[in-house]
Amino acid sequence: MSVSVINYHRGMVRWEPNARGRLEQAALELYFERGFEQTTVAEIALRAGLTERTFFRHFADKREVLFSGAGMLEELMASAIADAPADAAPLDAMAAALEAAGALLQERRALARQRQAVIIANRALQERELIKLASLAAALGEALRRRGVAEPAASLTAEAGVAVFKVAFERWVGDADQAELPEVIRASLDELRAVTAGTAPCTNHPHWPGW
Amino acid sequence: MSVSVINYHRGMVRWEPNARGRLEQAALELYFERGFEQTTVAEIALRAGLTERTFFRHFADKREVLFSGAGMLEELMASAIADAPADAAPLDAMAAALEAAGALLQERRALARQRQAVIIANRALQERELIKLASLAAALGEALRRRGVAEPAASLTAEAGVAVFKVAFERWVGDADQAELPEVIRASLDELRAVTAGTAPCTNHPHWPGW
Repeated sequence: MSVSVINYHRGMVRWEPNARGRLEQAALELYFERGFEQTTVAEIALRAGLTERTFFRHFADKREVLFSGAGMLEELMASAIADAPADAAPLDAMAAALEAAGALLQERRALARQRQAVIIANRALQERELIKLASLAAALGEALRRRGVAEPAASLTAEAGVAVFKVAFERWVGDADQAELPEVIRASLDELRAVTAGTAPCTNHPHWPGW
Repeated sequence: MSVSVINYHRGMVRWEPNARGRLEQAALELYFERGFEQTTVAEIALRAGLTERTFFRHFADKREVLFSGAGMLEELMASAIADAPADAAPLDAMAAALEAAGALLQERRALARQRQAVIIANRALQERELIKLASLAAALGEALRRRGVAEPAASLTAEAGVAVFKVAFERWVGDADQAELPEVIRASLDELRAVTAGTAPCTNHPHWPGW
């Protein structure tokens, strides 16, 4: 995915610096203000100061604005698993993937919050999000199997990792006190280790103040 | 949900013993043979030797035949969590819920296998199944919070429990050697404990022969 694109249009060379980012920003603002269903591609292009044609050069449809990042996240996490030291335990390879995902999303906190509000308000988008999470678990399970992790350990580690990600993400995105996502993810992973070890969960964990 | 129903029809009393079960059986056979989309309610009723009217007395539509059991499973599992001893650790309460679910589904193995084949063949049904699993995780998290389990332990235990269920169910439903589901679930849960403890996973676990 290119972040800025040169358009050759009727013989003229036109710069559209960061067209993709501007379209994404405009779309999220409009989905947030008016609702996803009520927003048209024409309105998104207008707010971004670009044309509909440019929109469709970057996104297949208005739903893809919300979900194209999911593929990037999946690749990033699968690569982190592949790149973990050969002797790393499955859950440690998964922790590296979660760390990478946390760092990426932390940089995009404002967009992530807006996106989450849009998705929560629309049932079809919620369903799409669940499908993306299931696809993420499948991809991470595959990345673990490529490291030689057997079943069912690979699938269980992948599903548990996605569970940690989901719980931590929801905590972070709805959190007023601005904890950093990688930190919330680490706390979540520790908590998962505690509950599966059967030890008393940390009921007063500093990163879960409001729950 | 009533299992057998007396229909009063034009002044006559007619017994339709186990109409719901017969409709379910007929529907699964037809979805399996012809595909879900290609099957009509009229055909289901015909194969069950019942009327369309009787079908709609039991199911809102043909999709509900596949998913009405999910609500029952959710109630069963939430009750098992509520009924676990007060001093049971969160994961032990979850294990009781998984045990109850395993016992129920084991009795319905043939139907469960047919249902799974139908769902795998249809993308919209797969999506619906993911939604049901997400709803199950939310309900189990709520049942754990009612026991006084704090966040994020409640959500993580619920998500981890559903992950174990999903992985074990897929193993069991596709397994030729007829392992019992409660046993596969217990093996899965042990494996989750092993991977989160960072110990070497049981790569040659007897209940995971073919993976």
